[in-house]
Amino acid sequence: MSKILVFGHQNPDTDAIGAAIAFSHLQNELGKQTEAVALGTPNEETQFALESFGLAAPRVVESAKAEDAAVMLVDHNEFQQSISDIAEVTILSVVDHHRIANFETANPLYYRAEPVGCTSTIVLKMYKENQVSIPKEIAGIMLSAIVSDTLLFKSPTSTQEDEKAAQELAEIAEVDLNVYGLEMLKAGTKLSDKSAATLLDLDAKSFPMGEKNVRIAQVNTVDLNEVMDRQTELEAAMAEEMTTNDYDLFVLVVTNILDSDSELLVAGDDKEKVEAAFQTKLTNNRAFLKGVVSRKKQVVPQLTEVFS
Amino acid sequence: MSKILVFGHQNPDTDAIGAAIAFSHLQNELGKQTEAVALGTPNEETQFALESFGLAAPRVVESAKAEDAAVMLVDHNEFQQSISDIAEVTILSVVDHHRIANFETANPLYYRAEPVGCTSTIVLKMYKENQVSIPKEIAGIMLSAIVSDTLLFKSPTSTQEDEKAAQELAEIAEVDLNVYGLEMLKAGTKLSDKSAATLLDLDAKSFPMGEKNVRIAQVNTVDLNEVMDRQTELEAAMAEEMTTNDYDLFVLVVTNILDSDSELLVAGDDKEKVEAAFQTKLTNNRAFLKGVVSRKKQVVPQLTEVFS
Repeated sequence: MSKILVFGHQNPDTDAIGAAIAFSHLQNELGKQTEAVALGTPNEETQFALESFGLAAPRVVESAKAEDAAVMLVDHNEFQQSISDIAEVTILSVVDHHRIANFETANPLYYRAEPVGCTSTIVLKMYKENQVSIPKEIAGIMLSAIVSDTLLFKSPTSTQEDEKAAQELAEIAEVDLNVYGLEMLKAGTKLSDKSAATLLDLDAKSFPMGEKNVRIAQVNTVDLNEVMDRQTELEAAMAEEMTTNDYDLFVLVVTNILDSDSELLVAGDDKEKVEAAFQTKLTNNRAFLKGVVSRKKQVVPQLTEVFS
Repeated sequence: MSKILVFGHQNPDTDAIGAAIAFSHLQNELGKQTEAVALGTPNEETQFALESFGLAAPRVVESAKAEDAAVMLVDHNEFQQSISDIAEVTILSVVDHHRIANFETANPLYYRAEPVGCTSTIVLKMYKENQVSIPKEIAGIMLSAIVSDTLLFKSPTSTQEDEKAAQELAEIAEVDLNVYGLEMLKAGTKLSDKSAATLLDLDAKSFPMGEKNVRIAQVNTVDLNEVMDRQTELEAAMAEEMTTNDYDLFVLVVTNILDSDSELLVAGDDKEKVEAAFQTKLTNNRAFLKGVVSRKKQVVPQLTEVFS
């Protein structure tokens, strides 16, 4: 039996890393031999979470075929967000909470998706269904993932199940959910020392929409102006990425995690589509979107709709 | 809230109908308002099962949009096997045991797939997870679905879980699993009074493979010769269907459910691909495949491989 790698999406966030660690541990307890790995190095928020609970960052891999491994995906399914050779390896299972698109297999597999705020919430349910107990440090990284994905339950993607799961995990991890949660979110908003290219890459995903290749990056902050003051520099970096990677449209979503609002910065030919999607007008390529914090629920479906 | 339709694939078999009835009942017990429907009339095996447990055949529907309905899919996911306007409606959930292909959504959804022999085995698990009890007649149609999909546990797709599930359901339904199971399978093999076109349509699915459109039909029998004696008539009907529906390749799998073997009858341009897939030689467009009974596990992946 070949090796099994468990990983989340490219440009990993705390759920991509946390759910991989948690799901791999569960599979190992159930008798499989798996390794949690990552498709990139952890961002500062994730690093803070890993260090808080004494966990090491997973090894970064670039090919599954090179390791002769079958794979288990968490927190994503779209091939363009996965490992480069995903179409050539055996996918044994997927645990996810996103739309399904650009995904296919030749064989039946285990697929578990639920429309909740975080993959780790589903993984917790699977621990219970299999009556496997959760070690303290793994509970810690799982609750970090839930806090990260739901912005401490303020995101419209957050469900009662996510909140209940996080509370349960906080007890196992022995932390105060709100105090730890806000501290962790803030650790991810130290942006001033980062280059524009780094900001665009912190949490970015590509989506095929109609005939177009759309890149949507998100940056969390506690001060929108701190990011938007760098508009010229950001637009130059966006233009460069678009040329290099053949993106047709680049949407940067800058989210204020304290006020739960976002500002868009848009580059590309289809600006009127963006205006239609959000029923707004772009001024100087920017638009303020009140109450928008979730790419998955408040950005991707709206853009998909106008491009379909 | 709009109406919710629950249905299995086109050319419904006993699992497509049975899992729809069982999953719809579960969802209703959990507070949703759903209706189990079907994308075609039940075949004779399914009719036998429905009558055995006093159930009516689900209403046949052709459009979900016309009824302003959201949908829940069971026993399939590939759009070409689903309702004609599947791409235009909201898919709330999928419960399935097949490969995933040609499936996508704009929004997150509930997706539950497991590599077991029958969708109804997964649905039974969901009844238990939600602590909902199963009425006798629904247990009956679920166990019929498991017997049908696993050919009374002889198919390589059958797992221990399927067998255990069927035994459990047989107790609730108060039938002798083996006696009832064989009787039901035999009810589906009365072929002599059917036209060639009807035989080809009994349990047929289309699969995009590479650039090709492949049609794979399966017929269960207790006597291969009874079917193969009608080769000329079958080939004429296959040729006609290929022209009408633009199939590039038509593979008819005639399966002896007592001996657990199959004979292929092949029409189309890519006969050498079929020979490569099954490491055999076609004689007079036919090949005997020892031990082959499962389209999903022993036919589709092998053909997918040679066309990729």
